[in-house]
This record gives sequence, C-alpha cells and structure tokens, in this order.
Amino acid sequence: MSYFPEIKAIQYEGAKSKNPYAFKFYNPEEAFEGTTMQDYLRFGVAYWHTFTEDLSDPFGAGTAIRPWDTYSGIDLAKARVEAAFEFFEKLNVPYFCFHDVDIAPEGETLAESNQNLDVIVGMIKDYMKTSKTKLLWNTVNNFTHPRFVHGAGSASDADVFAYAAAKVKKGLEIGKELGAESYVFWGGREGYETLLNTDMKLELDNLGRFFHLAVDYAKEINFDAQFLIEPKPKEPTSHQYDFDVASGYAFLQHYGLTDKFKFNIEANHATLAGHTFEHELHYARINNMLGSVDANQGHPLLGWDTDEFPTDLYTTTLAMYEILKNGGLGRGGLNFDAKVRRGSFSPEDLFEAHIAGMDSFAVGLKTAKKLLEDRVLEDIVAERYSSFSSGIGKEIVEGKVGLKELEQHALQLGELKQSSGKLERIKATINQYLLTSFAE
Amino acid sequence: MSYFPEIKAIQYEGAKSKNPYAFKFYNPEEAFEGTTMQDYLRFGVAYWHTFTEDLSDPFGAGTAIRPWDTYSGIDLAKARVEAAFEFFEKLNVPYFCFHDVDIAPEGETLAESNQNLDVIVGMIKDYMKTSKTKLLWNTVNNFTHPRFVHGAGSASDADVFAYAAAKVKKGLEIGKELGAESYVFWGGREGYETLLNTDMKLELDNLGRFFHLAVDYAKEINFDAQFLIEPKPKEPTSHQYDFDVASGYAFLQHYGLTDKFKFNIEANHATLAGHTFEHELHYARINNMLGSVDANQGHPLLGWDTDEFPTDLYTTTLAMYEILKNGGLGRGGLNFDAKVRRGSFSPEDLFEAHIAGMDSFAVGLKTAKKLLEDRVLEDIVAERYSSFSSGIGKEIVEGKVGLKELEQHALQLGELKQSSGKLERIKATINQYLLTSFAE
Amino acid sequence: MSYFPEIKAIQYEGAKSKNPYAFKFYNPEEAFEGTTMQDYLRFGVAYWHTFTEDLSDPFGAGTAIRPWDTYSGIDLAKARVEAAFEFFEKLNVPYFCFHDVDIAPEGETLAESNQNLDVIVGMIKDYMKTSKTKLLWNTVNNFTHPRFVHGAGSASDADVFAYAAAKVKKGLEIGKELGAESYVFWGGREGYETLLNTDMKLELDNLGRFFHLAVDYAKEINFDAQFLIEPKPKEPTSHQYDFDVASGYAFLQHYGLTDKFKFNIEANHATLAGHTFEHELHYARINNMLGSVDANQGHPLLGWDTDEFPTDLYTTTLAMYEILKNGGLGRGGLNFDAKVRRGSFSPEDLFEAHIAGMDSFAVGLKTAKKLLEDRVLEDIVAERYSSFSSGIGKEIVEGKVGLKELEQHALQLGELKQSSGKLERIKATINQYLLTSFAE
Amino acid sequence: MSYFPEIKAIQYEGAKSKNPYAFKFYNPEEAFEGTTMQDYLRFGVAYWHTFTEDLSDPFGAGTAIRPWDTYSGIDLAKARVEAAFEFFEKLNVPYFCFHDVDIAPEGETLAESNQNLDVIVGMIKDYMKTSKTKLLWNTVNNFTHPRFVHGAGSASDADVFAYAAAKVKKGLEIGKELGAESYVFWGGREGYETLLNTDMKLELDNLGRFFHLAVDYAKEINFDAQFLIEPKPKEPTSHQYDFDVASGYAFLQHYGLTDKFKFNIEANHATLAGHTFEHELHYARINNMLGSVDANQGHPLLGWDTDEFPTDLYTTTLAMYEILKNGGLGRGGLNFDAKVRRGSFSPEDLFEAHIAGMDSFAVGLKTAKKLLEDRVLEDIVAERYSSFSSGIGKEIVEGKVGLKELEQHALQLGELKQSSGKLERIKATINQYLLTSFAE
Repeated sequence: MSYFPEIKAIQYEGAKSKNPYAFKFYNPEEAFEGTTMQDYLRFGVAYWHTFTEDLSDPFGAGTAIRPWDTYSGIDLAKARVEAAFEFFEKLNVPYFCFHDVDIAPEGETLAESNQNLDVIVGMIKDYMKTSKTKLLWNTVNNFTHPRFVHGAGSASDADVFAYAAAKVKKGLEIGKELGAESYVFWGGREGYETLLNTDMKLELDNLGRFFHLAVDYAKEINFDAQFLIEPKPKEPTSHQYDFDVASGYAFLQHYGLTDKFKFNIEANHATLAGHTFEHELHYARINNMLGSVDANQGHPLLGWDTDEFPTDLYTTTLAMYEILKNGGLGRGGLNFDAKVRRGSFSPEDLFEAHIAGMDSFAVGLKTAKKLLEDRVLEDIVAERYSSFSSGIGKEIVEGKVGLKELEQHALQLGELKQSSGKLERIKATINQYLLTSFAE
Repeated sequence: MSYFPEIKAIQYEGAKSKNPYAFKFYNPEEAFEGTTMQDYLRFGVAYWHTFTEDLSDPFGAGTAIRPWDTYSGIDLAKARVEAAFEFFEKLNVPYFCFHDVDIAPEGETLAESNQNLDVIVGMIKDYMKTSKTKLLWNTVNNFTHPRFVHGAGSASDADVFAYAAAKVKKGLEIGKELGAESYVFWGGREGYETLLNTDMKLELDNLGRFFHLAVDYAKEINFDAQFLIEPKPKEPTSHQYDFDVASGYAFLQHYGLTDKFKFNIEANHATLAGHTFEHELHYARINNMLGSVDANQGHPLLGWDTDEFPTDLYTTTLAMYEILKNGGLGRGGLNFDAKVRRGSFSPEDLFEAHIAGMDSFAVGLKTAKKLLEDRVLEDIVAERYSSFSSGIGKEIVEGKVGLKELEQHALQLGELKQSSGKLERIKATINQYLLTSFAE
Repeated sequence: MSYFPEIKAIQYEGAKSKNPYAFKFYNPEEAFEGTTMQDYLRFGVAYWHTFTEDLSDPFGAGTAIRPWDTYSGIDLAKARVEAAFEFFEKLNVPYFCFHDVDIAPEGETLAESNQNLDVIVGMIKDYMKTSKTKLLWNTVNNFTHPRFVHGAGSASDADVFAYAAAKVKKGLEIGKELGAESYVFWGGREGYETLLNTDMKLELDNLGRFFHLAVDYAKEINFDAQFLIEPKPKEPTSHQYDFDVASGYAFLQHYGLTDKFKFNIEANHATLAGHTFEHELHYARINNMLGSVDANQGHPLLGWDTDEFPTDLYTTTLAMYEILKNGGLGRGGLNFDAKVRRGSFSPEDLFEAHIAGMDSFAVGLKTAKKLLEDRVLEDIVAERYSSFSSGIGKEIVEGKVGLKELEQHALQLGELKQSSGKLERIKATINQYLLTSFAE
Repeated sequence: MSYFPEIKAIQYEGAKSKNPYAFKFYNPEEAFEGTTMQDYLRFGVAYWHTFTEDLSDPFGAGTAIRPWDTYSGIDLAKARVEAAFEFFEKLNVPYFCFHDVDIAPEGETLAESNQNLDVIVGMIKDYMKTSKTKLLWNTVNNFTHPRFVHGAGSASDADVFAYAAAKVKKGLEIGKELGAESYVFWGGREGYETLLNTDMKLELDNLGRFFHLAVDYAKEINFDAQFLIEPKPKEPTSHQYDFDVASGYAFLQHYGLTDKFKFNIEANHATLAGHTFEHELHYARINNMLGSVDANQGHPLLGWDTDEFPTDLYTTTLAMYEILKNGGLGRGGLNFDAKVRRGSFSPEDLFEAHIAGMDSFAVGLKTAKKLLEDRVLEDIVAERYSSFSSGIGKEIVEGKVGLKELEQHALQLGELKQSSGKLERIKATINQYLLTSFAE
C-alpha cells in the first residue's frame, strides 16, 4: 500500500517549473566538487516531526492529517515505518534521525519499552537492507515522560539518572545495530526551572559522569559513532546547561570530554541564545567541534522554538559557507529538525516543506561555493589582518614580544589609521551573488 | 570644490559589474508602469545620518571621516550644504529630509537659532533652484537638547511645551519655504522614563493639543504638506506613546486627528515593537494611513535602533509589495533613515551604503511587481476567503444574520474541513521569484 | 467525599506562621476602606489551570496529580465541579472563571457539546445556591479545536465564523444563567501565522462584526455583563490583532465598540508585548477602559506565556495602585490566570500557589494604600506638572494659545531649568514602604 | 572648597527616617558575622559614572549638572579628584574603581597620555594617604577611542594591538602604584560587528596572547592583584567574545588562563545575555571563578545596557546569597557600575542613587543571611538530592557503576515517583523573609 499515493518521486525540474512537488535548485545527481551535490548535502528527515508530530501547540489540539493515524499502538509504529520509507524513497533523501519514543511506543515497564523497540528496530533494519536511506543519528528521548520532570542525567533523583542511563544504553545498542553515523544528546531537561531549589554543581558533575558512561559503553560495544551535544538555551526549562556552543565547550573542557564529543548545532536554538546560526557554526568550526546540523529556522520575533523549515537564503548560504570551510560535516549531516506549521497539516505539506528546505540549502551550497571560489570574503579577511604576517604583528603571533616591547613600539607610532570594515558593501555583494546565480 | 572628488556620478551598470560605485539593479530611467522606476522609488537621503552623524556610539567616540569637518559653526553648516548637494547629484537621488538642528547650529537663544536656520534655509533654497533633488519632508529636533529631557509636546514643564511649539512653528515655515511634501513628528521624548513620576493623561492630552496647534498653523500659512507621525516603541525613553502604528492610530482617533495625519513607518522601529516591517505597512495601508517610509533595517538580535542600510531582500520585497498595493506612497517616499556602521567611516562608504539600499529596494520593487502580476499571493488569499462571497459568509459580511441564525447554520454543519495555509510552499515560491528574476 | 482531605480551610495566621497552608498577609475579614479586604481583592480561580490543566509543555507530557483523574468523560467533568467547589470553599475565594470546554467535554456535534454544557451548568448552578463563590466571568474556547486553526471570529472560512458565533451565543446564555459579572473574549487565534496568506482587512472587519453580534444578542437576552477583550501580542499566532491595550483601543474605536467593551488585562501578556503590567493598567484606566485583571506573572527572560502565579511584590503593588486609582475594578476582579509549574504537580501545590498569589496581592493592596495615603507619588506628580495650572501652561491646557503666541512666549524665555525626575529616590522610597509595613 | 556643600556625611538613620540623604538599612558599623557590615559589603564608586559621565544618550546631549564642569583639561581632571574624595568621604564608601581615561585626559600621543596619568595618579595617591577609601580595581579604556573601532586585544591591526598592550602595561603599573585589589578587563570591542569580515580564530588566539602578556608583566612588576574578565554579550559590538561567564570560562580553559583569572560579573550584562544575575554568580562560584561584582541592574524590557542603580531587592538578596555561599568576594567587591538616569541630573541624585544601591544591598545581605541561617533553601536542596548520598546514587557519584549496572537497577524499578519542586511555596517564603525582617 501507499501512504502518499498522490505523490510521485520528487524530481529536479528547475526553478521555472510550476510543479510544487519538484526540486527547483537541488539536483542530487549534479556534479559538485568531484562528487555529486547529495554528498555535500547529507539531508536527514526527522522522524518525530514528520511521522509522529500531531501539530498541537500550547493552545491548540493537533491538526495533522496523517494517513497512518487509523492505527494505534505497535501497529501505528509499524505503519509509520512503512510510511517513512515510502517518504524517504519518494523524497530521495539519504538519511533519517529518530528518538527511541518516535519509533516505538513506551511500555508499562522499561523492559516492555525495550521489547517494543526491538520489534521496530528489526523492521527498520529490514527496510534499510534495500533502502538507500541510512541512519544519520539516533538518540533517546529523556525529556517527555513525567519521570524526567526534574532532569535525566542531571536529575535530582538517582533512580531517574539510572533510568535515563538505561535508555541511553539501549539507544547506543540501537545506533550500532542500525549503523548510525552519530549519536546525539539533547538535554531538554538538563537545566533548571529555578535556581532556588537546584544543586547546579552536583547536576553538572552528574551530567559529566553521564556522558563518560555513554562513551565507555560505546567503546565496550564497538559503536564508533560520533557523539554530539545539541545546545539549546532554554525551553522547556528556564535555563539549560548547554545554553550555546560556547557553554557546551566550557562543559566539555571542564569534564575532559572534548575528544569524544562535537556539537549538533540547530539554527533555531542559536537564535534563542542570541546568536546567529553562522556564529555557532563558526565558533564550533574553529575549535574543531562542528559535528552536525539541525537544519531549521526560527521566527526572529517569537521567543520560542518554532522549528520552521529553513527557507532563509541568507542563512543557508552562510551556513553552507561555514560547512564548506569545515571541509564538510564528516559523519554529520543536515537533519531537518523542522515541522510544518500547524496550519500546514496536509500530507502534501510534508513534501513541500522538505522540498523548500532542500532547495534552500542547495541554493546556499551553490552561492557559498561561488563566494569561496571568488574569495569574496577570504580576500577581505586576508587584507584586514595582513599586519599580523610581518613586523610587530608577526612577533605578537609568534610570542616574541612582551608588554615592554609593545609599549616601545606603540610610543613611536603616529596616530593610527584604520580601514573601513565595509559591511554595507559586503552585504550588497552577497545579494548580487544570490540574485545573479540562479537564472534559467 | 568637491567633497567627494574620487566619486563620479553613480550609473546603472547592472549586477555583473565589478564597480562598487555603480547601481546593479536600480536604473532610475528604466520604464516602470507607464513612468520610470525613480517615480516609484522616491528615495530620500537623511541629512542627519549622512552629513551630521559622527558615528559615535554609547561606548565610543565618533569615527566618521568627513571632508567638511575642517570647518566649524555656521561655516560647517554651509559646507555640509555644499557637500549634500554634490552628494545628491552624484547619487541622482530625488529627495532629502532633515531636522532643523541638522542643517544649522543652535544659537544661544531661540531667536539666534532661527537666524542660523534662515541663513542655511536660504542657501538650500538657492541650491534647490538648480538641483533635481527636492525636500521629501522636514521636521524639528525636539529631543536632543537637555531642555527636552522630560519631553516636548508632552513635557512636564509648560515652558518646554512652548519652546517645542515655537520650534515646530519655524519648522512648518521652513517646510513651506522649501516646498516639503510632508512634515514629520518623531516623538523621541514623548513618553516616559518611569510611570512613577508621570501624568500620562495630561501628557497625552497635551500631545493631542500640540498636534492640533500644528495643524491649525499649517492651515493658516497655507502649508499643505502631509503630516506624519513616526512610531517607535522605546529608546531613548522606556516607553514612547506612539509605540507602533496601532498605538498611534488609537491616539489619532481619540484626539480627532485621523484626517490630518498619516504614518511615517520605519523598519527598525517595527522590529523594536515586535512587528515585521510589512505588518506595520499593511496595518497602516488598510486603514488608509500609510504615508511614508523610513527605509532602514535593524539587527534582529540587538535590542536597540541600529538604523542599518536596508539590504534584506525579503523585507524590501514585502515592503514594496505593500506600497504597490497602496498605489504608491503619494507624497511620501523612501527616506534612508540609515547610518553606515561605526566601522564604515570613510566617505566612500556613504555612497556604497546608499547604493546598497537603493539596489535592494529596486530588487524589492521588481520582485513585488512580478508577484502581483502573477497574482501569487492574491490568488491564495482570494481562494482562502472565498466562502465570504456567497451563502452564509456573504450574509455575515452584509450584516444580515445574528447569533441565532448563525447557531442554526452551525448546528447543521458536519465536522468542518480546513484547508492548509501552505506557508512553506509560499515561502519557497517567493525564493523562486527572487532567484530567477535578476540573472544577466 | 473530599478531593483534598489533607487540606483544611485556609485561615489567616499572619506572616510569622510556619504553616504553609495559611494566609500570611491576606485576611479576608480585615477592615479596609469602610468594607473588608476581600471586597477590594475580588480573587477568582481559573477553572482551566486548576481543574483541567495537566501541566504538559511542548516537550513534555502532563505531570499533574489530580485526584479526579480516575474519572473520564462527563463523570470527570462532574468530579471536577465537586473538586472545584471544595477548593473554592477551603480557599475562601469569592469568584471563579471558566471557558466552556473547561467544564464540559465537547461532543461529536455542536448540539451534543451544548447538551454536555447544560448538564454541568445545571450542576454548577446547584452548587452556587449554597456556595459563597460566584462567577466572575465566563468565555468560550474558540482556539483549541482544529476547526479554529485559521481563526474564529477572524476565520478564513465562513462556516468557522458561524460555529464560533454559535459557541458565543451559548456562552452568553450560560453567563446569564450563572450570573456572570463579565464576559471575556481572548482572541488566541484572531491573528495570523503569516501575513502572506492573510486578508487582514476582511478579518478585522469580521471581528468587528463578531463583537457587535455578541453585544446585540446579550441585549436581546438581557445579559448585562461587562464585555471584556483580553489583549495578547502573540502566541499561539505570530501576531494577534489585540496585541496590547492600545491596539485593542484602536480597534474598538474604529469599529464603534468603546461603549460596550473594556479590557481584561493580563500581566504576562503585557510583558510579552514589551510593556509593564502597570503600563497596561494605567493606559486602560485613563481611557476609562480598565475592566478586569488576569493576575499572573511571566518570566522576563522567557519569550512565551508562562502564566506563573503572581509573587513579585513590586508588580502587585503597582497593579493595586492603579486599581485603587481606578476606584476598584467595578464588576471585574483578580482572576488567577496562572498555573503551577510543571514541577509543582501535587494537589497541595494548587493551594500553596493560590495562597502565594493572594498574599502577594494583599501586600500590594496595603502598600499601595499607604503610598496613596501619604501621597508619595501624587505629590511628586502634582509638583512636576504644576506649571500647567497657571500662566502659559493653563492657557495651553485651555486651548487659548496658538503657535504664534507660544513662539512669543518662548522667545522671551531664558535658558530653561529642568527639575530632576528623581527615579532612584522614588524606587528607594517604594522599597522602604514595602519593607517597613509588614512586621509583626 | 566643597563640591557638594549642601550634603553632609551620610549617616545611618533607619528606614523610618524621612531624610533622603541618609542610609535606611545600611549601617557600616553594624556588627556582622564577627566583623562589621561594611566588611561584607565592599562597595565601590565607579569613577566614570559618577565623575565623568555627562548623561548623554544616543538621542540626547548630556544633562548632568556637575560643579566641576567649570574646569577643563587637566584642571578638570584635578577637580574631579577633589570632588571624588569629598564624595567618598561623605558617602563613607570603602572603594572606588576607574579606567585610565576617566581620571586623566588623553594626550596627543601615548607618551603625553601617560604623563597626564602620572600627574593625576600622584594626586590620587596623595589623597589616599589620608582617605579611608581604597582602590578596588582599575582598568584601561581600550574601547572609546576611534583607534579601537575594530578591537584592541582582538584588533584587526597589529599596531592597535600594540597600542592597547601599552595601555595595559601602564594600567598595571598604576594598579600597583595605587594598591589595587584587582585588575579588570572589559572587552567592549573584543568581538565583531559582522562575522563576514572577521577572522575569529586569529582574534581569539590574539586575545589569549594579550591576557598572557598582562599576566607575565604583572608578575614581573610584582603586582599581585586578582585579574578579572567582565563578560558582556553585545553592545557596542554585535557579538562580544566574553558573551557570558560560561563563554568566558570556555575561553580561559582553552587558553590555559583559569589559574590567573576570575570574573567580574555585572547584573545588567547577565540580563542582556539572557541569564539572571544570580545564575552568573552561581555558575562562577561553583567553578571557583567568582571574583567581583558590578552592582547595577537593567530594565528587563529594554534591550540595551541601562546601568541602573540596583534597587530590586529580589536580585540583591539572591546576589548576596551567592556571595555569602562563596565566603565573600575575597579581594573583589560591589562596584556600582551604575549611572543615574538622564533625568536625574542634579548632584544630589548622585548621593541618593548610591544610598538607594547601598541600602538595597544591605537589605539583600541581611535577608540572605537569615535565609542561610534558617537553611530555607539548603534544606530543600539537601532533601531533593538526598538519593545521591546512598545506594545507587552514591555509586553513581563515586563512579562505581556503568550503563549495564544502571540498566539492571532501572529494570527492577517500578514507576518512579517524583517530588514537587515547590517553586511557588519557595517564592512566597522569600517574600515573607523580605517583608518581616525590616520593621522598626
């Protein structure tokens, strides 16, 4: 059977096509840097937003019309797997991602939950034998169930820590079983509602222990995925410990985890932390900590996580610029941690939204590549900092001068001339690159 | 003499030009809707940001390098006029805008200030005889001087009210003298630092009186400019009374001023109020209150007025969409209430920034026109609300039914089917229009 | 039977009591301004947050432990009524508020929903015969059900408008049946997700019609409650039409509804709109539009509606200051539109949270009264604006001078001396009033 | 001569005093924990806000009335020193803080600036011989002058780096000369306006070098002050590298500087970063990085640094709670990095504002001490986390169990019971402590 009988395989038809169910800018087979575009745009479908999400919001019931919702329980879980692989194939997407509770219903006990997972993981594994779509990363949901109300790895109760740890163990086993490229931790409850009843020191220490336990067990079972932490500043808690990449980096350094972890960076989470997406990517990149991307966007005027599909071409361009500078994402990818709006509730919207996102990143990739080829920003940067390549600048960088020598240098300087930063011209240039590259 | 000897007249050279001092998308002579593009893009140069601003910020001294800064006092004011008209001509811009204190130094007394104004206004008038550049609007600065620390039209002190009123009188006379199209009120001090020491009722009543006095005097001297209020939610005060267009509309209705005033809407002020620019334009438009535009942009992650030159093509497109739907701006225009960044301090940056802004609005104009021609959004809207054109919907609109009739109708309805809002598809379509329209 | 067997009637025991289930500052029987404190603090319990809410959040399932959750369907609704009146009595609270869907389950059809309502309304009416607790206001929920995904009174579909209108009709009948003091409209879906597919003009016109229909029907059935609009800027939509009190006032003026409506002002919604709570109360008060209050508070660092119980004494003091200046709230009251945190899930928390809120408003009432008695702010304001009581100031207020006379006045002024606004001293004074009033 | 002839020495007169120039809650001589209150409240006056600031804002000229403004140049600098020590004595404040440019005018050359500094530093040193007021910390202003437009320690130009380094050298020498307890770095230009022209890696590496150079030179001259970094997320730049304490901690770890630096934490900067003040203090404390405090407050609805005097008693209480838990601030203190509002421009406001701040922190100190004595929060925390003191929790903390053992433990657990976090009750309790402690 088909869950999306009206949708055919999504093809590249170019920007002038009026067919809403076609790629306009993303052509997976198009040659790119010695390989094809799809190897640079390792797109992933988020199982939760696409197959589990009902589009409820805090003031409204779910609106999503999903053909598989005629089922319930484990049958619903199975129907979702069938729908998912049909979706993956039609969309021609190389990866997907999931939390444990997305794919299988929780049981009355942990043992029962694990049994449910085994059933569905087996089914997924079967599908993956013939599907081109692979597992970008998996994770476990240690935030939705009431038992995690006060945290998971940073829980105030030791039994909850143990429960969360047990779920991670199963998650690592599933990741290995399905060949996941990475394994993600999003700490939605690892933080606090109020500092007034919180022992932050113990919570952070425990969280450090939690991650070390995961690292140790992955090694034990020879699961070689890249571990990733996904920062988010707040929501659902008032403060989450992995507020942004810098906070997460402070944590990983403090607990001796920098060799084992990188970051999974989400655009909307960057916005909520007061950063641009490209800032978070850049900061991670220069610290060799850029692992993977949750490709979505937020609404700059709304103070919560909207998880919109990415369509802002400025953002996709600057994101792909950072990714190209990083030499790609390695074992990471571009996971669409994005949901259709509550008003976009039809099955067709799922396709159109993914097409919008994939096309937007394809535009970003091509524009970023042209900017790099023409060294538009590289030359500006090289020129701006050229004084550090010789003379006193070189001596500074090489550690050959102290404050006394620098004072001597400064005392003989006349008034310093600065060069314009030329922000306005740079922005206009980026506009030109965007506008003149995609005509047909 | 020339203040910008290295800059020649700015020409249209198209997007592929490598010349940074050229228009890429804005061609003033290009045919557009029976006239030329420049008639639809009534650009104005903001005298304060371009000729007076020193680029200081709260933590830094001015950085601007301005050739006229070798002068001081009234000579500086004269040099600025010379530089301004050279700038206008080279940029080929149809309009400019100013506050009184931008063009002439304040004297020790009001009389002396007015004399200084007379000198410079006379000089400007002479220049305007031969220049193509006209006065879009003028205003008086009733916010910088310490006397306005507690307000102007809403001052806590009657003498300050009188002083502010006298300045407006002079402003209206100057506007008439120079043929201004509009006259603007920005109430930077019309609000409060704290409610704890404020009589808001008296202040609002006085502000209503203040505007009526201006209307009466303009009539008396036959100055027929369009009056404009420019909303801004805060900064410098904690709360400004004309918080946004809706607040201003509440005020104008309450004080019987809707026939005399429209709004001058600034993009950055919209952002600070928690609105999109297009929202403010749209709301004003449907209430027949859209007068003019302060064309700039803010930084969505910064909480103050950055007054950046507009380069975001999404925003310029949706702004021009509203303006086209409004049938243009009438006697209003697109004033670049924008300053170059503190790091963009060279005279050349002034040209490049204006080129960036003008090009961005030209792109916005062309894209908006294509969207309208193809009825991209019009058809979506028409379809969505079609049920109000017949049957019960028509009866609702025509006021023919009450709650009882509506209940009868509702009781016989089955479960209602809604249609997808298709936000993701709409956004992708706008991207396609942007990307495929400007290739060369 | 009892749903809260461990809780006895909440008594006033004074601030030094260690009993968590006692009032420390709120003594309903305490003499106040010729009557008792409870007549000035017309507290209301929000049915939805207290009896229906499950404490789920966008990333977590419900945690609330509620003794009545052993029931389901109409039996659950009945159990909630029993629990509610037990709660009201133990808390000794004079009012409650509800939406239709809070008290009775929705049926398969509108008719069935109305039948369910009739059952529960009858039961509530019976309880009210012997209870001291009355209905402050009721409303209908026109935002949760998927049919309202695109609005209710501003729906894009006429049938939805009709359905919403039918629900309001029933709501008005219920309000009359139960003797509601007011009737509230909160327009959670009256706004837009995106302007790109929205006909704002038609939506606002329809919303104006919607309110007129309600006014007409209330008159027809002799339901004399005060109509109230509750502003909120966003969430769940990207933009709600009743953004803040000023926006709502613009709307009511435009559609000729100022005589029929006042505002129900929520603290958290003020914060989300960028205003202080006291600003919204003040603005409504001076326009004679202050109707009722949703007494809660937000988290200033979080961008969504947290609906916390009010404990900030600065806010309760300044709110009660405005309310005392308004001569009380008339038929309005202080409805605790507040929910316990997701981590405060026990039945006892419901009592403790209400005690916290009631005590905080009692402190606010007493402090505000002392500030007023001592004319702390009144004298500051009177002095600051004294120049408008004579001379040129009086002439301004009385409309006896125009710009010419004001210019003449200004020309003969020397440099103006301003007086300090003394914000720091005022804030210190308020601290002193708070700190020195409540010792025992 | 006297600059404040109308102000006598500020005395403690208790909260009921009507004298605005008196402490109500701060009694420096009051016994406290074996010493006196002033030893726990090491208040500092910020030279810049009190003696140099003119109260201009981005839209207004300075309003401050300062008796020393009749002087100019080096004479003005000397007059300020005289006024400062009169102010310190009358206020009875133990510390002050300054930047180099606050105390002496910059010369045409670095050498001339240093000569000016020598003159004023000598004068200050003389005053300090007889004054009780000591230097809490000093710093150099590497952000106001146009040469720092693109950074100082992270400048794009090597000469600017050298110039900034030379200024730090002088600053360290001055600190040693005047016996400063600490030395502060606030990196107002250490960040970027736009990432598009920025080499963040080089800038951060250079900034790391810059700090190491300062550490080395301080050692060389035997200046043993505590080095402090002061985080701020943005303003004046779009992004500052020391965004918050966590970001700064990541930086210090990365560059091997954790032994040499602690943090100077400012309340308003915490707010701008999306944190509470107490969060920043707490995070620094548990990492042994809490050095000193910039005691001010921001306006939660305004997006820029308002640097208000601290009057919010919730914040001062929770700040002093963290400081007491830290065993005090060591060589740090409570520097009032706060300015009177632009409308509070009289000399008297300077006293009243400091009194307001000192009183507010005295209230905070006393309330925090009572909370600690009664173990109000300590007992809550101890109880919440008690499961980590025995059984599986103890094994987790001691590192004795891995994921397999934790899974075994979890598998045998029944459904977990969580305990309420009781936020509402905790907040009400804090209110009770505030309200009932200060009656007279």
